Amino acid sequence: MRTLKLTVAYDGTNYAGWQRQANAVAVQQVVEEAFAPLVGGVPPTIAGASRTDAGVHALGQVASVHVDFEFTPVAVQRALNVRLPADIRVVGVVDERPGFHARFHAAGKTYRYRIVTTPVVSPFERWFVWHAPWPRDVAAMRRAAEALVGRHDFSAFQPAGEPPRHAERTLRRLDIHEGNGGLTIEIEGDGFLRHMARTIVGTLDEIGAGSRPVESARELVGLADRRSAGRTAPAQGLTLVSVRYE
Amino acid sequence: MRTLKLTVAYDGTNYAGWQRQANAVAVQQVVEEAFAPLVGGVPPTIAGASRTDAGVHALGQVASVHVDFEFTPVAVQRALNVRLPADIRVVGVVDERPGFHARFHAAGKTYRYRIVTTPVVSPFERWFVWHAPWPRDVAAMRRAAEALVGRHDFSAFQPAGEPPRHAERTLRRLDIHEGNGGLTIEIEGDGFLRHMARTIVGTLDEIGAGSRPVESARELVGLADRRSAGRTAPAQGLTLVSVRYE
Repeated sequence: MRTLKLTVAYDGTNYAGWQRQANAVAVQQVVEEAFAPLVGGVPPTIAGASRTDAGVHALGQVASVHVDFEFTPVAVQRALNVRLPADIRVVGVVDERPGFHARFHAAGKTYRYRIVTTPVVSPFERWFVWHAPWPRDVAAMRRAAEALVGRHDFSAFQPAGEPPRHAERTLRRLDIHEGNGGLTIEIEGDGFLRHMARTIVGTLDEIGAGSRPVESARELVGLADRRSAGRTAPAQGLTLVSVRYE
Repeated sequence: MRTLKLTVAYDGTNYAGWQRQANAVAVQQVVEEAFAPLVGGVPPTIAGASRTDAGVHALGQVASVHVDFEFTPVAVQRALNVRLPADIRVVGVVDERPGFHARFHAAGKTYRYRIVTTPVVSPFERWFVWHAPWPRDVAAMRRAAEALVGRHDFSAFQPAGEPPRHAERTLRRLDIHEGNGGLTIEIEGDGFLRHMARTIVGTLDEIGAGSRPVESARELVGLADRRSAGRTAPAQGLTLVSVRYE
């Protein structure tokens, strides 16, 4: 058996997220089905590094799959892209060591969140941003971001009712760039709870808009109460940029 | 009566071009219908600077319209954007001098054409580029471009069977930038014949691919025979960037 590592880009607009669903089309399923003809007809199971939510996009999702054919990586990439719809593209295929698992072995992920603050959203950006045209105190958002960087319990940033589990994560970087009619928030961490990236953005947004004090960011980490954090920013503004491996 | 100048951005993917058509939805019609409630129900006629082809996009199409209401330009912009679909946005409204006509008074236009030359097209760019992944001699394309800049008869660059008319145009700039996995061609001129921008791109592409000699660019200008020029590059790679007025 060989283990292949795929890098996948997708426009998540029309998908129920990465992970296979019973009643909706997910990216994982579409990629698995594109594999079927290469492996004798039965779609293999593909493991994705990030279970991106419905509507979230990816520039560099990483997935692993076990196969026993002898096609070269380039031939696999070409065969998959011929079968895949244009909103999903395999941008890289390489052989990995046996046992490599895209999710279990991921050492870090980088997400990017785009907020448009001008009154009008460009037609070319419309599926890839959150349109939130209110004034913000970006300096306050940056101070709050500093308080979130580091190793913390991020329980407050996952959905209410999430099964209790180890919720310590290390946020390595949380940068806020101003420009092009809005804000771009880059979030890098060793791992992310469900909705964590989007709830960080929603919380920073409330702080920027003045409806939540800057200090609340520091108070939220370590707090187990989901109701304390800000709202979850819309999925369509979020893009999984890359996954890091040791 | 007031004359308003609108600047309009659109994703042309789902439209039969700018100009109103009998059996297909054009951008002009959609903008005119968005105006209707502001002017008592009957859509006014709006003149666009460029009759962009079906599938061509715009960052800065300019249109003029005569109205007799007293809404401020900002209120007009807001009212139109509330009614327009998200793939068409009015990005600016200003009052112009009486008699201003977006097409007749246009002094120049800038178009941009995007070619992706890598094997894979990003899902985020897929509606806005021509995927043409073959090797090109960009230096040869640049030499050919130089021969096209200036005042020439561009008859060979319009569709065969076009009614004969004055076909002298001044091409002010024809720049080819390499980067981001492809080529970006910027075309600036005082006016453009139908398909002219796309046929210039198609001709440069053939020169770059080596299927047409560099010198043919110089021979084509002044030649009235459409069959001599290259093919017309696909509409979806073309964007009207801006329209210039004196």
